[in-house]
Amino acid sequence: MQTTIEFFWEPGSPYTYLAATQIERIAAENNAVVQWKPFLLGKVFETRGMKLPASIPAKAAYMFKDLARWAQFYQVPITMPKVFPVHSLLASRAAIAAAQLGHEAAAARAVLHAYWGEGRDISQTDVLVAAFTQAGLDAAAIMSRAQEQSVKDQLKENTEEAVKRGVFGAPSMFVGDAMFWGNDRLDLLKLVLQGKIKA
Amino acid sequence: MQTTIEFFWEPGSPYTYLAATQIERIAAENNAVVQWKPFLLGKVFETRGMKLPASIPAKAAYMFKDLARWAQFYQVPITMPKVFPVHSLLASRAAIAAAQLGHEAAAARAVLHAYWGEGRDISQTDVLVAAFTQAGLDAAAIMSRAQEQSVKDQLKENTEEAVKRGVFGAPSMFVGDAMFWGNDRLDLLKLVLQGKIKA
Repeated sequence: MQTTIEFFWEPGSPYTYLAATQIERIAAENNAVVQWKPFLLGKVFETRGMKLPASIPAKAAYMFKDLARWAQFYQVPITMPKVFPVHSLLASRAAIAAAQLGHEAAAARAVLHAYWGEGRDISQTDVLVAAFTQAGLDAAAIMSRAQEQSVKDQLKENTEEAVKRGVFGAPSMFVGDAMFWGNDRLDLLKLVLQGKIKA
Repeated sequence: MQTTIEFFWEPGSPYTYLAATQIERIAAENNAVVQWKPFLLGKVFETRGMKLPASIPAKAAYMFKDLARWAQFYQVPITMPKVFPVHSLLASRAAIAAAQLGHEAAAARAVLHAYWGEGRDISQTDVLVAAFTQAGLDAAAIMSRAQEQSVKDQLKENTEEAVKRGVFGAPSMFVGDAMFWGNDRLDLLKLVLQGKIKA
């Protein structure tokens, strides 16, 4: 039986981008499947009275170097987006619409790559359309569906679920009730999937 | 020529404890040496307007599970101390005194193990004396030297140096100018030591 990894993600989070480049491979290597769950990290921060990590200047300066190291290690592109933080509501809704159309992984990767791989402003419809099209998806269908109430509701539900389950950052991954926060916890997640440590 | 890893550490930090159980081995395997630098993390947080991570309840709840996972992976004991956060000034001064006496690594490990391995209150002189004695060190000499002005000054200097060099958490490790924050960056540190990625 395959294990499900619930992957709570937010387009504006660079460590989500990094983890997203690895998670499908890790799942495949460990008889697991990924369930992509877009949520609004800003709402979670607000609920918990937290600030963006990058709002501490020393932390921001370090973070950009740290991201570059991970990108080298993973051999993936990384760019500091011109617009940061970004309004990610439309991108997240589009990701949910794409999921309803059966393309959750491809859409998530397309959005994250457009923002963190290419530094494009994913608050803009044309940027999202280009990203989905490049990924071989039906961008028109996705963007139209992104306006539906069921999509808006799903994003809200995912965010409420994240808060309820203890999420305070992104990416947050769940194997059953066990939460793993951050790209830097992929190794521990793997060890749990392999039964080498207890969750 | 051996590379130096400067290891800025704080007794009250659990991820410092975890990293401290690994850093000497990592250094030895990569032709490097560890320079242990106790500093006052509380002062750094104060300077940067930061809160203790554990002050966010959801983060604290996660942290304790996360620590237990790392401890399993490293096969080291971990205990939630009864007194947390702890007044670490005396322990940090004692660590500096021990360093001046030529025992920086043994003293650091003794302090961190007493607090995070055994959960003892390291603000207490008798706890520190027991920890140093158990580590085979001259506890009386260390505790007496811990009161000297040169020790107090050194701790202050280390803390000021940490702020100046961009430290905002513990452990913070430097290879030259390159900073690595956290137990979860030991792998990246290793890759840099091995020349596999650029810092």
